[in-house]
Order: sequence, then C-alpha cells, then structure tokens
Amino acid sequence: MTQLNKAAMQHNLHPFSNNQELIDKGVRVIERGEGIYIYDTDGNKIIDGMSGLWCTNIGYGRTELSDVAKAQMDKLAYYNTFFQTSNTAVIALANKLAEVTPSQYNHVFFTGSGSESCDSMIRLVRHYWRSVGKPQKKILIGRWNGYHGSTIGGTSMGGMKSMHEQGDLPIANITHIEQPAYYELHEAGETPEAFGLKAANWLEEKILEVGADNVAAFVAEPIQGAGGVIIPPSTYWPRIQEICRQYDVLIVSDEVICGFGRTGNWFGFETFGFEPDIFTFAKGVTSGYQPLGGVMLSDRVAAGVLQGGELQHGFTYSGHPVTSAVALKNLEILQEEQIVERVRDDIAPYFQQRWQETFAPFAHADDVRGCGMIASFKVVKAKGEPFSDPARAGSLCKDIFFGNNLIFRSTVDNIICAPPLVITKAEIDEMLALAAKSLAEFEQNVVPTLLAEEAATAK
Amino acid sequence: MTQLNKAAMQHNLHPFSNNQELIDKGVRVIERGEGIYIYDTDGNKIIDGMSGLWCTNIGYGRTELSDVAKAQMDKLAYYNTFFQTSNTAVIALANKLAEVTPSQYNHVFFTGSGSESCDSMIRLVRHYWRSVGKPQKKILIGRWNGYHGSTIGGTSMGGMKSMHEQGDLPIANITHIEQPAYYELHEAGETPEAFGLKAANWLEEKILEVGADNVAAFVAEPIQGAGGVIIPPSTYWPRIQEICRQYDVLIVSDEVICGFGRTGNWFGFETFGFEPDIFTFAKGVTSGYQPLGGVMLSDRVAAGVLQGGELQHGFTYSGHPVTSAVALKNLEILQEEQIVERVRDDIAPYFQQRWQETFAPFAHADDVRGCGMIASFKVVKAKGEPFSDPARAGSLCKDIFFGNNLIFRSTVDNIICAPPLVITKAEIDEMLALAAKSLAEFEQNVVPTLLAEEAATAK
Repeated sequence: MTQLNKAAMQHNLHPFSNNQELIDKGVRVIERGEGIYIYDTDGNKIIDGMSGLWCTNIGYGRTELSDVAKAQMDKLAYYNTFFQTSNTAVIALANKLAEVTPSQYNHVFFTGSGSESCDSMIRLVRHYWRSVGKPQKKILIGRWNGYHGSTIGGTSMGGMKSMHEQGDLPIANITHIEQPAYYELHEAGETPEAFGLKAANWLEEKILEVGADNVAAFVAEPIQGAGGVIIPPSTYWPRIQEICRQYDVLIVSDEVICGFGRTGNWFGFETFGFEPDIFTFAKGVTSGYQPLGGVMLSDRVAAGVLQGGELQHGFTYSGHPVTSAVALKNLEILQEEQIVERVRDDIAPYFQQRWQETFAPFAHADDVRGCGMIASFKVVKAKGEPFSDPARAGSLCKDIFFGNNLIFRSTVDNIICAPPLVITKAEIDEMLALAAKSLAEFEQNVVPTLLAEEAATAK
Repeated sequence: MTQLNKAAMQHNLHPFSNNQELIDKGVRVIERGEGIYIYDTDGNKIIDGMSGLWCTNIGYGRTELSDVAKAQMDKLAYYNTFFQTSNTAVIALANKLAEVTPSQYNHVFFTGSGSESCDSMIRLVRHYWRSVGKPQKKILIGRWNGYHGSTIGGTSMGGMKSMHEQGDLPIANITHIEQPAYYELHEAGETPEAFGLKAANWLEEKILEVGADNVAAFVAEPIQGAGGVIIPPSTYWPRIQEICRQYDVLIVSDEVICGFGRTGNWFGFETFGFEPDIFTFAKGVTSGYQPLGGVMLSDRVAAGVLQGGELQHGFTYSGHPVTSAVALKNLEILQEEQIVERVRDDIAPYFQQRWQETFAPFAHADDVRGCGMIASFKVVKAKGEPFSDPARAGSLCKDIFFGNNLIFRSTVDNIICAPPLVITKAEIDEMLALAAKSLAEFEQNVVPTLLAEEAATAK
C-alpha cells in the first residue's frame, strides 16, 4: 500500500471530498501513466478501471497527442473566436465533429468542459425557444440522480440532492422526474420493458403537470453514469422520444460520459435508438488529455439559434487552438484504429461476458450489469436485499479495491468500472482477477462486520 | 486586407457574435503567433493589442511552455483529484500560488476557466456561510456592467443586461449596484475622490436595503475590463473594504483580467489597496496557453470551508496535470524574468505616457486613461460630448483598427488596449503609431458621416 502524502494537501482543495479528512490522512500522488496503468510516487502500479474519470478512452501515454499539443502551442498557443476570427485548429475539429456525428448535426458551440457544456446547453435551449417565438418555453426537465456537471446551471439540471442542498439549488424553471432505475423502483412482477414504459411516461405526466407550452427540453444521460450506472430498459428511450415529439419538447442527450465510443457507438443515443435535438459532450472527445467540451446542435435547433441575432454567451477558451488540435488527433486515432468498432464488436462483448462470469457467482453481488465499456454490480446483504447502509458498504468495498491498486468507483452500493476503450483481453482478465480477489476480501473481512452491526441495530 | 474565410464558419458557432452575419461574410483565420504578433492564413501580420482576450501576458511562441506541456502529457496526461488522489503537477502549482500571493492566501480550488471560477466562487461563498452557522447570508452583490464569465451563475453575478435578457437572469439572491464610472456618472463639479466615496457608499445603501444579515459577499473586478476599462477613483476600494468589514460581508476580487501582473502588481487588489477574502483567477495564470482557473481563499474562508464537511462541488479538470504544469512554468517565467516588476517600474509608465501623448490631442478622443498594461479612450462627438449612438461609433472605429491589422477592442464608445506584458518600447511605439493613423482615418472618413446622421436625425 502506498504512503499517503500529506504535503500534497497543503494548498489544494479537492473536489467532492472532505478536505479536512484528506489533510489529516493525506492522499495518493499519481505521477505517470501508460496504457491502462497509472503509477504513484511510491512506484505502485495501479490499474485504472475508471479511465481517470470516464475520460482517458485511448489510455495514457499516447505521444501522438503530445506531439500535436506541442506543435500547435508553438504555432499558435491561443487565440479567441470572439473577434470575427477563427483558427485553423478549431475549424478542423468542427469539421471532424460534423463528420463523425449523424448527418443532422452540423453546428457546435465549444466550451472547456462538460460542466460548461451543460450550462451552455441550458442557455442555448432557452435562446432557441425565444428565437423561434416561444419564449414561454423555459422549463427544463431533468431526472433525480442525473449528473450534468457542477456549475450552478449544471448542478440544477442534475438531480443530486446533496449538491442541491449545499448550493441552494435548483434555480428556477428546472424540475426533475424519477430515474428509470429498474432495480430500485420496479414493482413485484413488473418486467424491465413494462417498467421502461412506465418510467418514460413519468415525463409525460410532468409535462402535463407544468404545461407543455412551458416546457423547453428534457435533459438526460443515455446511461446515468455518476448516478450509479443506471441502464434504462430498451423501451425507455423510444417512448421518451415519442413523448417529446408529441409535446414539442427538445430532447437533450448528455453524452459527456457515453460519447465517443464508450457504449460501442460514437454516441450513446445511437446505442439507445433516439435522435436528440441537442447533445453535450466533453471527456472522451480529448481522452481527457486537454479540457474541451461542446454543445452540438441539430440543424433544426441551429437554424433557430442563427435567426436569434447576437449570441450573448461564450468563453475565453471556446475554440482554444491547442485543446482543439488535441481533440482532433484523438478523434483521428479513434477512427484510424477503429476503436469504436472494436468496442462494439470485440472488446465490449468480451468485457461484459467476463464481468458477468466474475461477479454473478458472488453471494454479496447483485444486479450485475453493463453496456459497452461500462459495467457495475451492487454489493448487497443478499441477492435482492441491500445493506441497511448501502453507501457505507459500497465505499468500504471500493476502498479494498483501491488498496489492492485497482481503481473502481462506488456510488451508493454500486461498484463501477469503465476502463480505457483500448484495454486488451489479457488486461481485462488481469483486472477482473484482481477485482474478484478484492471482492472476496470484502466478503470475508468486511461483510461479517456489516452483518453484525445490522443485527445489533435491529435488536 | 485579409480575405475573409466563409468555410471557417461552416460548423462552428462563435461566442458573442451574430453567427448568421459571420456565416454570410466570413471570418479572419489566425494561424500562428510570435511575441505580440499574430498572422492570419493570408500572411497578414497583425499586432495583437488585446493579448488574445486579456490573457497572453507573456506573448506567443514561448517554447518553454510547450516543452512542459509535452513532457507532462507524456508522463501523465490526465488524472483526477476526486479519488483521494493528487498529481505532482498540481501540487507544485498550488505551492507556487501560495508563494506568489500575499501570506493570507493558502488554499486554492482549481477550475478550467474564469467562468468556472466565478461560478464556483458563488457556491463556495454560500457554503462558507452555511459552514460557519450563518446560512441566511445568501445574497451576493455585484455591479451593473461588471463581467464575471458566462455560466448561468457568472452571468447572473455580472451586470451585463443584454446577457441577462437572453438568459432569463439573474438567478435568485444576486443583486447589483451601480458602477464607479466617474466619466458617465459624476455630477458637475464633483471630484473623482468625492465620486469614489459616493459610489462605494452605494454598496452600504444596498446592504442596508436587503439587510446585512442576508448579504454574503460583494463581488467586483478591481478594474472593470469587459465593461469598458472602468478605473475606480482611489477612494473607492478602501471605502468598499471598510463597508464590507463593518457589515461582515465577504469581499471577492475577480482577478481574471487584473491578476498576474496586468496592473503592475501580481494582483489588482494590491494596486488598489484592499484585501479580498476570496479572489478568482484564470487567463494570465497560463498566459492563455491552456485553460485553467481557480478560486483562492483567505485563511479565514478556508477554515470555514474546511469545517463544512464534504465539498459537493468539482470539475473533471480541477487540477488537470497538463494545464497545471503549463501554469507553473508560466508563473516561473513571470518570476524569473521579473515581468511584474518590469510592468510596474518600466514598461507600464512608458505605455501610459505614450498613450496619453498619442490620443489626448485628438478632437474625437476623450477620457484618455489607463492603469498598468490596460488603457482606453472614448471616441466622442466632442470632448465631454458622446455620440448619440456611442456603441456604433466605437464599433466603426475598432473596425478601422482591425482593417489596419491592429487588434484593439471596443465596448460602447471605449477603445481598449491591453497588450502582452512583454511588449517592448519599440513595439509600443509601432503599435501606437498605427493606432494614431487609424484614429485619424476614423476622424477623417467616419466622423463626418456620423455627424451628418446626427444632424439629420435632429431635424
């Protein structure tokens, strides 16, 4: 186990952390990366089963990207796109995005992150409706337990109650419906397909409740990522699309996690069979090597925005030449090495099969599931029965993985894995062997304590 | 004059632009940069009098920064700071920031931009007050015509009415006072010093109006940049500080433009003699070579935040190793080459003197002013008398500069210049000679038309 470093916490406040705890106990310092592996300052070799934060899709250490970054930085390290100017790098990237997306997506607004993308999306949605003469369509509907970044707009759009509480959010004209979480929310005897339709119809109920004339958009991730890998039943998205078309509500797909190959297609909406009017992206577009995101508009929405006069919105780093050049090279690598096709046809089927084989047999694993290169299972008291403190169980389980130099993530009782798309079959085997060893340790060393605690509390 | 490029606008929506107009007429495509010069795809050499967008403080083409970017990208292109982990680059950057800031600033929360910094600041301010047991202190007071980025939070905090209108903003619990704009708002016979005190007292009036117990913070740029280079009288900031201390209101200095040497000190608050509790930064911290920003907390505020438990906020690219490494190198260059001291003692005094000499004599220039490496003047009908459509006059004037391959910016009738801090005296002379030539063209070719139009309208 690595030596935790306290000096690392002297001046830097970490996101989504109890910083006082980290100051007291220290953190692990990552120093280098190669492929699916990262190394800390003590020389520990760690398997990165989360692609950084769902982003290093082509793995660490690809020197083609650093070569491009250096060349672009030497040529033109920065220029803005405000002053009736563009730059060669961002033009090439915009062209490439139009090429890799379905034919109706031809206009992109660039940002520096997924958070800025979701925040910009809210502004663009409202601007669109005002531009086409329906300014009263202002309400955006998201989902509880959805995640759309951490700005005030993005946090409001997301459905993380702990974030709302700390931020006095959501802001006005954003509302939420329940998530399509079959495991947690289905009734006895209900099939996933029936549940999917029911969950989609919650959107119709909400639209009717607030008035279709007031609803601007429905915003959702194809698969809820940070929410705990909630994979909707196959009936869900087609019915959502039907409802949105019926009530003239824009569909926004948040592709920050699912985009650029993660689900075995370029975009999650292709995997789930719907056509958003707008989609947000970030992470995989650069494999995390540089901060860049964007909002892609369908031709219908772009036409509305273009007739709306001057866009009163933008960022200093919208269209940054260096981040754009790196994104372009990353997309070229995805294309040239056919990484998306490999996910779909070869490595994801292998990963999902091995994931099932590995975890389904465990007594304290349930809801073993996945899609593309995302997978999860729940740690449970028994099949069908969660621990009384599921978040604590998940966190303790994840800590064992972490201690064994394997990075998975926990969300409530979900243990989550989303490795780089370039992972090999041998590396999947290595990763899952270490995961199985870690889960066995959890069952042997932690579960008895948790069960004893539950029994004591029940008395 | 350069050939405008229409293909550049095929797929990219530009910030703060009328995109349909740009599609119709095309844009200029910037290809490379060196020092204070940028070059377009037609080979035009252009003087960048705006440092990109107030950011390329050390100029274009510094290969030390690209070397660092490549080395860090090859070593560790990405890792997050969520998972009880840090990386060597961000630790070094946080240490450096603690070193170059006054002694009471020791904790930084990293973001990817000025917008994310301002948005995060709002969240941190409210989290601070909740953590120290005053959750009712929620209202943030900004200024009309202030600029704090383009997220929903930042746009609300800023005071740009056109942005508010397009975005249905501001959000709740953000309010604004009038700006300390002496030229526009002083009364006959009022000295700048008397006006400065009066403008600061508008804050006290607002605090009393909404109730001091409800006020969380006052948020302002030391000099309003995008608002048109509004330089407050010397009496303004000391009185603001006095008021904030009296009513227990946090002072937030938005250093996105003023930070890292622009005003002749490391930070604008040092130039204007006050001590913020929090300051936001971006732009100059990397000289724009990479997207990175942050929120710096005084020890008082950090202590409050640290006692508040888990911080429910953060970005994937908070503490990105590559952007951090580039920022660190940029700050080392500022230190090693004594660029801030050079601004204060040598180049800014020269620039300001030459700025006055150049523009004061023009019949249609007024309010010729500046601070450090920021300067501005107004184009006017006559001294003390604005054009009836000041924004149109400013824009037409700026277009002439632009056509002469000199990039200045216009905001209403203010013509603005903020060149790289490394500009030489010879380059200042070259830039101002071209500016004088451009302004003479404006007076000769455009002013008569504007005056004739005004006369016709008046009839």
